[in-house]
Amino acid sequence: MKVVKTIEEMRRLRQQTRGTVGFVPTMGYLHEGHLSLVRRAKENDTVVVSIYVNPTQFGPKEDFKSYPRDIPRDLAMLESLTDIVFMPEDAEMYPAGYDTWVEVKGITEGLEGATRPGHFRGVATVVTKLLNIVGPTRAYFGQKDAQQVAVIKKMAVELDMDLELIACPTVREPDGLAMSSRNVYLDPEERRGAAVLFKALTLAQELWKNGEKDADTVLHRMMALIKQEPLANIVYISIADGKTLKDVEEIKPPALVSLAVRFGKTRLIDNVVIG
Amino acid sequence: MKVVKTIEEMRRLRQQTRGTVGFVPTMGYLHEGHLSLVRRAKENDTVVVSIYVNPTQFGPKEDFKSYPRDIPRDLAMLESLTDIVFMPEDAEMYPAGYDTWVEVKGITEGLEGATRPGHFRGVATVVTKLLNIVGPTRAYFGQKDAQQVAVIKKMAVELDMDLELIACPTVREPDGLAMSSRNVYLDPEERRGAAVLFKALTLAQELWKNGEKDADTVLHRMMALIKQEPLANIVYISIADGKTLKDVEEIKPPALVSLAVRFGKTRLIDNVVIG
Repeated sequence: MKVVKTIEEMRRLRQQTRGTVGFVPTMGYLHEGHLSLVRRAKENDTVVVSIYVNPTQFGPKEDFKSYPRDIPRDLAMLESLTDIVFMPEDAEMYPAGYDTWVEVKGITEGLEGATRPGHFRGVATVVTKLLNIVGPTRAYFGQKDAQQVAVIKKMAVELDMDLELIACPTVREPDGLAMSSRNVYLDPEERRGAAVLFKALTLAQELWKNGEKDADTVLHRMMALIKQEPLANIVYISIADGKTLKDVEEIKPPALVSLAVRFGKTRLIDNVVIG
Repeated sequence: MKVVKTIEEMRRLRQQTRGTVGFVPTMGYLHEGHLSLVRRAKENDTVVVSIYVNPTQFGPKEDFKSYPRDIPRDLAMLESLTDIVFMPEDAEMYPAGYDTWVEVKGITEGLEGATRPGHFRGVATVVTKLLNIVGPTRAYFGQKDAQQVAVIKKMAVELDMDLELIACPTVREPDGLAMSSRNVYLDPEERRGAAVLFKALTLAQELWKNGEKDADTVLHRMMALIKQEPLANIVYISIADGKTLKDVEEIKPPALVSLAVRFGKTRLIDNVVIG
């Protein structure tokens, strides 16, 4: 496994690579969710993983500085799975005077975009940069960040990027909590309570299976369930069209049921797709 | 020479190409300025020229519909110089619901950007798309559109695009008028008067050579010269830092002297670089 810290060196290695390249962009502090993407990426001849906590996708009041980092642990986890780890530095990714941005409108307006202004501009920009540097045949993203997946897919198609994007299923803890680097922020009591996100999503799926098509009814049942958890503060719950990500009144598959919930200072997200 | 109208076919041809690829993106209605770029592009193993009048870089009141087009003439001019002509269609470049944009801030605020809001967002977006489709080793642009060259260079560097951008000198008519597809709009009297643009730029260069460093003094002399031409209506005249494109008070090389002047409904631009 080669660890590469400059764009020039990454490009040089890429030019020497023959066959297909699978790419998994991450912000590090890896968990089983990331590793499931890396394992899937092994369907390519070469696997590249990037570790880069991208400053431009964090709002000024968000957790960029405190975002968990543990490079030695990450590298140990990747050692047997990855050919190249790309860890660029801020000064090279965003030199002084940096001023070019990729923006996907429309589907970025609701959900995470509404509560994290500028977030998806930062995501779309850094993913474009990383894809241009790494030049993969296929890139892998986790379905846990459903809106991110939708944004990156739309961007890649509309900017005519020549690669395949693959979304992989969310990996969960035994109690259903979606794996996330931010779970480390939770104290034991919050951690127990956080299982309520997936319970609420499971409830939505069950109601749909039992014939309930009214979004408001399902949302109210989910909300009532979450409110039984005293530490949970709902940021949003949404049932949206799976393609436009606009809220719907009547549930028609594919529909994205998604939510953001705060536990203390920790903001967790999760989703399921109905249909 | 192959003429290609779909993105899929262009990609297929590109994948079959070995060696270097030189790319000249144009809006067609070709003139000697374009051909100078194509001839330069022959330093590559394969030459690709695109002809596409990009709707997203025209303002709602601009000349998108009336922009001159003559595909048979363009193809005849390219026949002996070009391997592939790529002519995509609007429906494939911007399908319904298209919503992804590339934007360079800062250097797009003044000059053309100030008088043509949204213009450079359209340019940056379509150039990103074309570069992703064609995958050139080198791309060629005319220095006549100095701000466009600066925007595309900044974009390519900041989005880590893996290619070389080459700006080629402005090609001029015998009286100094910069070649432009829009020159065809000029009636004979306007055409004669249009020589004043390059006369004013030449005056700026001479004043600088004679030791004049005060931008206001030079601008006033240029303005006085242009006002002697009764059909000329100045949109802007600027002396700017060659890198930031911000107006300067004291001329220091490299400085960009640029202007936009209307003759009737026709808007002409030109520039020289001092130093």
